[in-house]
Amino acid sequence: MALKTLGAKAAAALDKELMSTGAFSLDQLMELAGLSVSQVVYRVHPVSKGRRVLVAVGPGNNGGDGLVAARHLRHYGYQPTIYYPKRPKNELYQRLAKQLEDLDVPFVDDFPVALQSTDHVVDAIFGFSFSGEVREPFPAVIQAMAETKLPVTSVDAPSSWDIEEGPPKSGVGSNFHPDVLVSLTAPKPLVKHFRGRHFIGGRFVAPAIAKKYGFDVPAYEGLDQIVEVGPDGLKL
Amino acid sequence: MALKTLGAKAAAALDKELMSTGAFSLDQLMELAGLSVSQVVYRVHPVSKGRRVLVAVGPGNNGGDGLVAARHLRHYGYQPTIYYPKRPKNELYQRLAKQLEDLDVPFVDDFPVALQSTDHVVDAIFGFSFSGEVREPFPAVIQAMAETKLPVTSVDAPSSWDIEEGPPKSGVGSNFHPDVLVSLTAPKPLVKHFRGRHFIGGRFVAPAIAKKYGFDVPAYEGLDQIVEVGPDGLKL
Repeated sequence: MALKTLGAKAAAALDKELMSTGAFSLDQLMELAGLSVSQVVYRVHPVSKGRRVLVAVGPGNNGGDGLVAARHLRHYGYQPTIYYPKRPKNELYQRLAKQLEDLDVPFVDDFPVALQSTDHVVDAIFGFSFSGEVREPFPAVIQAMAETKLPVTSVDAPSSWDIEEGPPKSGVGSNFHPDVLVSLTAPKPLVKHFRGRHFIGGRFVAPAIAKKYGFDVPAYEGLDQIVEVGPDGLKL
Repeated sequence: MALKTLGAKAAAALDKELMSTGAFSLDQLMELAGLSVSQVVYRVHPVSKGRRVLVAVGPGNNGGDGLVAARHLRHYGYQPTIYYPKRPKNELYQRLAKQLEDLDVPFVDDFPVALQSTDHVVDAIFGFSFSGEVREPFPAVIQAMAETKLPVTSVDAPSSWDIEEGPPKSGVGSNFHPDVLVSLTAPKPLVKHFRGRHFIGGRFVAPAIAKKYGFDVPAYEGLDQIVEVGPDGLKL
């Protein structure tokens, strides 16, 4: 059985559909996506392995998912730290950041320094809408995530990877291979190049919508918002 | 140790604060509240005990929590049915209902008839802002919930109970004693009169805000959005 994936254009169309005919708000979807990411971190890196989680947050919705995940992780007993160098004047992202500040979650400016005192890294820089060049200040951040020996969990896509083609042939991100990937709603074509632990999250897609976009709602279990899958996209 | 509760006015003030200085949107809070309710149903009534859950939905935010819970229950493999006789022209509630329709969740008009073919009932009619008289068509619904032998889970308050004083001395609701109660964020004073299984849900309150309102963030475990507590409000 071939792995069913969702290309960049299809993923954008699905997002749009969920928020129009699907009647979801971005607040709702981001809350559920971030909850999924937090459950993956809890699964692959329980609190007993070290509480400190450094979350690299990008300027768009992928970053928003990271902010939500950090809040849930804080409630689970982790000690998240946020690197959020580009904070757009977007009301939702500002609110998500404020929710973290109210939980005394620190925001830091120097990613390589922060990397020296953490136990796990969440890459929430770029998601399925990324294409082209990695802009400042993110090249050095991605390079640091590529070089660190700490476990890295990427949200929806390893940042800098082309959504269809995977890792760049050269330059920033060409050597970036995160340990864990959380595909939101459905894997993107880049997963063919990913060799770590792969989870699907986002337990909110109606079967009819999944069918329309050519993927299956994965076999989530119990209350889980996530499911770990193998290279064929089937539950491990 | 005395049980710390949140009166009707304090609960309203907390809600207002969460959505102003706390920077939460109603969408977000309702998503997390409904998620908590769904986790309680999963805990007290696993799918193996019967998939059918009848959700009685009131006209306000308590009803919205019930709609969200029903959606999560559907994703967990339950077969929810919705009784929603008063549907306000509120954009958020309409969206939550649409999300259920997209999952082929049926909406029914006759509560007593629906009660004859279900395994569990969720009472999401009235919450902490209820006071005064139970209006039509809810008296007969509450009476049916009082008389049924099926397990009933109430959201935040057994509907018709006074938030401070508990069950009415006579009339509608005076004989209504649900089996399970999910207090959202903190128990209300009425819990002194409640004798069933009691859970607290809503794992999103910052400790500083809880302190300001005179309650403690309960001892949630792992990924749980809920915690079962005893008559003293402490974790069982």
